[in-house]
Amino acid sequence: MPKITAEELELIGRERVPIVGRLGLRVEEVGKGAVRTRAPFDEHFLRPGGTISGPVLMAMADFAMYAAVLSVIGRVELAVTTNLNINFLRRPHPGDVIAEAKLLKLGKRLAVGEVGLFIDGDDEMVAHVTSTYSIPPPQHQ
Amino acid sequence: MPKITAEELELIGRERVPIVGRLGLRVEEVGKGAVRTRAPFDEHFLRPGGTISGPVLMAMADFAMYAAVLSVIGRVELAVTTNLNINFLRRPHPGDVIAEAKLLKLGKRLAVGEVGLFIDGDDEMVAHVTSTYSIPPPQHQ
Amino acid sequence: MPKITAEELELIGRERVPIVGRLGLRVEEVGKGAVRTRAPFDEHFLRPGGTISGPVLMAMADFAMYAAVLSVIGRVELAVTTNLNINFLRRPHPGDVIAEAKLLKLGKRLAVGEVGLFIDGDDEMVAHVTSTYSIPPPQHQ
Amino acid sequence: MPKITAEELELIGRERVPIVGRLGLRVEEVGKGAVRTRAPFDEHFLRPGGTISGPVLMAMADFAMYAAVLSVIGRVELAVTTNLNINFLRRPHPGDVIAEAKLLKLGKRLAVGEVGLFIDGDDEMVAHVTSTYSIPPPQHQ
Repeated sequence: MPKITAEELELIGRERVPIVGRLGLRVEEVGKGAVRTRAPFDEHFLRPGGTISGPVLMAMADFAMYAAVLSVIGRVELAVTTNLNINFLRRPHPGDVIAEAKLLKLGKRLAVGEVGLFIDGDDEMVAHVTSTYSIPPPQHQ
Repeated sequence: MPKITAEELELIGRERVPIVGRLGLRVEEVGKGAVRTRAPFDEHFLRPGGTISGPVLMAMADFAMYAAVLSVIGRVELAVTTNLNINFLRRPHPGDVIAEAKLLKLGKRLAVGEVGLFIDGDDEMVAHVTSTYSIPPPQHQ
Repeated sequence: MPKITAEELELIGRERVPIVGRLGLRVEEVGKGAVRTRAPFDEHFLRPGGTISGPVLMAMADFAMYAAVLSVIGRVELAVTTNLNINFLRRPHPGDVIAEAKLLKLGKRLAVGEVGLFIDGDDEMVAHVTSTYSIPPPQHQ
Repeated sequence: MPKITAEELELIGRERVPIVGRLGLRVEEVGKGAVRTRAPFDEHFLRPGGTISGPVLMAMADFAMYAAVLSVIGRVELAVTTNLNINFLRRPHPGDVIAEAKLLKLGKRLAVGEVGLFIDGDDEMVAHVTSTYSIPPPQHQ
């Protein structure tokens, strides 16, 4: 069973990163080491040309990975991203943005995962992210 | 001489990415292939614990690289980020966020650069980014 | 049907990169945009401590991605890697090294894919790679 | 003063990674957190078309970063690469390969650095690498 609920994760998302709070994030599924989040479409996501801006996708991916880590270790405030690598694959047309994160590794000190980003209704991935989180030693948690 | 001015870049920043517009970005220096931007400190940058959130740094870096590309090729709307890799180095304490971007390569199809992120008044880099931009072929510009 | 055979890919591997030739690479499966390669274990892969060295994994991943690109576009000598990002997940114990590459995107100019690296007989991924290839314009192929 | 000499690093390079041993690496300069290495040109570095193969550059960069870490913490066998990101910038023509590594951060648990790769006699960087090392806790060193 995951160590944290979707409701708790949504709350953390709003509190934790005001810029993410503005994304109106919903956490749709929480498994152990796997999380699916959604940002309902908002005009503010768009850049001229009518595609969803890169920083929106990056913010989504960062939070989805954080949520996937917490789904396994529970609420640990001090877990921090150390690396994030994103490949933008296709122009993301207007629509809800969906981030599907899953852990590739959960060690004592580092968690590594990947995130696929999609626009609702389209199977083709618009961006792919790998990311590393540093997990604080137990005495600091 | 750079092919675009600081004022034009600030305008693009506000128009282009609403989420970046909210950062209140200023473009402080524009050289050929090198740009320095600043986001004056705002409470909304903070996450609990009082450090500046990752998505703010990523959005800053993405725009600084875009500005560095435009400083050489002029205003080309269709240039798009294809890859961005960020290493978070130190906890960024509250303060203005500064992004210094410079190009490592400007080819016909791809531009690659690096961005150092700093908090005003502190010499230690808080995050380091490398990023790739795809430049559209001339007939599409 | 893939546009190139396993035999052709093995030959390219040996010719193309002498350092890869030394890996004794075999191409086990070639689908359209998906390739599985194997490097039979060799004492030279090991670093002190008895784990397989990072450069061996990186060389494997680079070739597997190249092979996945060629499986779709056919033999195009000038396709070149522009970016490779590797996360080392677990210590790779001695054994055959297996690389499973699949494309995430094949555009006109860029191909992006991911590669999972495994040690034969163990389901846990030892390293994960994402990589980008630049595809030359038709007149240069 | 660096905590390790160029001679010790060369020996480690040969022992540690046979594939690196074959590169005939020399360590030319060792500062505290900064190292310059050279691989004298060898026909085996080339791929068809006459450019130096990517895996050679990646192996060079990985070792140069490792050497930069050891220059500060001394000989710690268990330091391991956790992430390496490389951008290939220009076709590397035949010549000695030079890797210049410097640390961006040395924390208790993670070291992050960047490496510029050059061909001797040419000022233009042929590839740029950022890399992260995990440093084992003191009781394991």
